[in-house]
Amino acid sequence: MSESMEDVVTEVQDAICDAVSALDGRAFVEQRWERPGGGGGRSRLLEGGDVIEKGGVNVSIVEGDLPAEAAASMRSRVENLPENPVFHAVGISLVLHPRNPWVPAVHANFRRFAIQGGPWWYGGGADLTPNALDVADAIHFHGVWQAVCRRHAGVADHAAFKAWCDRYFFIGHRGEARGIGGIFFDDVRAETESAPLAFVTDCAGSFLDSWLPLAERHHREPVSDADRAWQLHRRSRYAEFNLVYDRGTTFGLRTGARVASVLMSLPPLCTWTGDDPTPPGDAQRALVDVLRKPVDWV
Amino acid sequence: MSESMEDVVTEVQDAICDAVSALDGRAFVEQRWERPGGGGGRSRLLEGGDVIEKGGVNVSIVEGDLPAEAAASMRSRVENLPENPVFHAVGISLVLHPRNPWVPAVHANFRRFAIQGGPWWYGGGADLTPNALDVADAIHFHGVWQAVCRRHAGVADHAAFKAWCDRYFFIGHRGEARGIGGIFFDDVRAETESAPLAFVTDCAGSFLDSWLPLAERHHREPVSDADRAWQLHRRSRYAEFNLVYDRGTTFGLRTGARVASVLMSLPPLCTWTGDDPTPPGDAQRALVDVLRKPVDWV
Repeated sequence: MSESMEDVVTEVQDAICDAVSALDGRAFVEQRWERPGGGGGRSRLLEGGDVIEKGGVNVSIVEGDLPAEAAASMRSRVENLPENPVFHAVGISLVLHPRNPWVPAVHANFRRFAIQGGPWWYGGGADLTPNALDVADAIHFHGVWQAVCRRHAGVADHAAFKAWCDRYFFIGHRGEARGIGGIFFDDVRAETESAPLAFVTDCAGSFLDSWLPLAERHHREPVSDADRAWQLHRRSRYAEFNLVYDRGTTFGLRTGARVASVLMSLPPLCTWTGDDPTPPGDAQRALVDVLRKPVDWV
Repeated sequence: MSESMEDVVTEVQDAICDAVSALDGRAFVEQRWERPGGGGGRSRLLEGGDVIEKGGVNVSIVEGDLPAEAAASMRSRVENLPENPVFHAVGISLVLHPRNPWVPAVHANFRRFAIQGGPWWYGGGADLTPNALDVADAIHFHGVWQAVCRRHAGVADHAAFKAWCDRYFFIGHRGEARGIGGIFFDDVRAETESAPLAFVTDCAGSFLDSWLPLAERHHREPVSDADRAWQLHRRSRYAEFNLVYDRGTTFGLRTGARVASVLMSLPPLCTWTGDDPTPPGDAQRALVDVLRKPVDWV
């Protein structure tokens, strides 16, 4: 069954990179890597494009002994974990940092995790990080993910996954969310793998629907120096979240994962100012309000 | 006795800000703040200067109930900690991010920490983060701190404090140090406070000797686009260290300290590239070697 998830992530990586490259005009550069403990990955990176300032779309298929630290934290939420667990993980992870501040940054991740001779589960999510509030964009993005969840009601609960996303991507010390959310889920199980796999396959296949129309709509919009400065400020919050809170990042750095892949999510250019800058316009001001108090968009 | 440390940090803040402003031509902007639980601080920030792209010199004098998390971690290394400890902390903390890549960034921090009716101790340090190796700079900087330690041999051990600095400012996931070190010390105690206070007073008063000559020497040196790009790359490593490893930062963010003060150390502008960029010249290449394998400069 895990070979099916391998097919999904491999095909979706091609489809996403092809579509993003077609929009940008620039190709992704591929790097293949092997994990010393078993498995490896295929990372694709696009830097310095006209539309994408930096974007990574990474597939990894890794296996091996579960690090003791990971096993300990897993034991509290997973039943029937063997004594010395061997894991198998298949996932696709992507982050796109657009150049134009009016195009939202986006992150998505879909994965299958299994313990040899033990339990398996699916996880993932997709969330949007605009620099300014565009209500139509927010409704479109959340609408796509609501529709996906509704098509898989046996395993997916949109309201719960949306709320989970708002909780997860919260920058505690700033009192605000990283972005305007989407969906986030983990530990998705069922009697057999067919329903969870169908859900995650639909998710991965829906990513382009959720984000590409926003990029096409905004990537040629005029940008003032103040809009750009605000974008670089917002990106510093993105870096703060990923380095301080993100489980995948902090776990990856502690357990010796491939650093370039773990940190590909970090922004191409960002600014930390001493005091919070003033939002340069109404749309940016409206964003800050929404980050402090999440909205149910659909 | 703690009023003496208050005098030290207040006077040194003035002296450092005056000297840095004189070099830059721009004044620091002061903000005073109060801590809800007791005490407060005086933060000074210089942004967008000709010499200093972003610099903060902050004094804080805070007191109150020690947060439970802090008390728990302190109990393992401090004897005679009372049941519900009340703390009193006085410190100066500074970070200067110069604009010219040939001027090293610098950080210093000196503090007295005391538990009401219990133990007290001094801590601090100063360390240099150049973007390129200049051997004369390294020898000068380390030489100043060695001389300070030698003047206070009863409480200060330069070799130990230098090694502590190299261990502390290490970015584990990158396998390299944040910079080329300096000194780092904590838990400095004695029969009475006079010797530790004299040492930390001498440290605080020696900061300008350690760094200002380097800034004066380099701040007008010609800068290529590649030198600047390399500086922005190095600054992203600085941000990684501070957000992932620095005790003061991670502790401050968890315990609700004033965020603007805790994060004033973060760089004004930085770049995360997908792959490690190639050092643009010999001096930058030599730096990377030294970051991977610390050198005893004096």
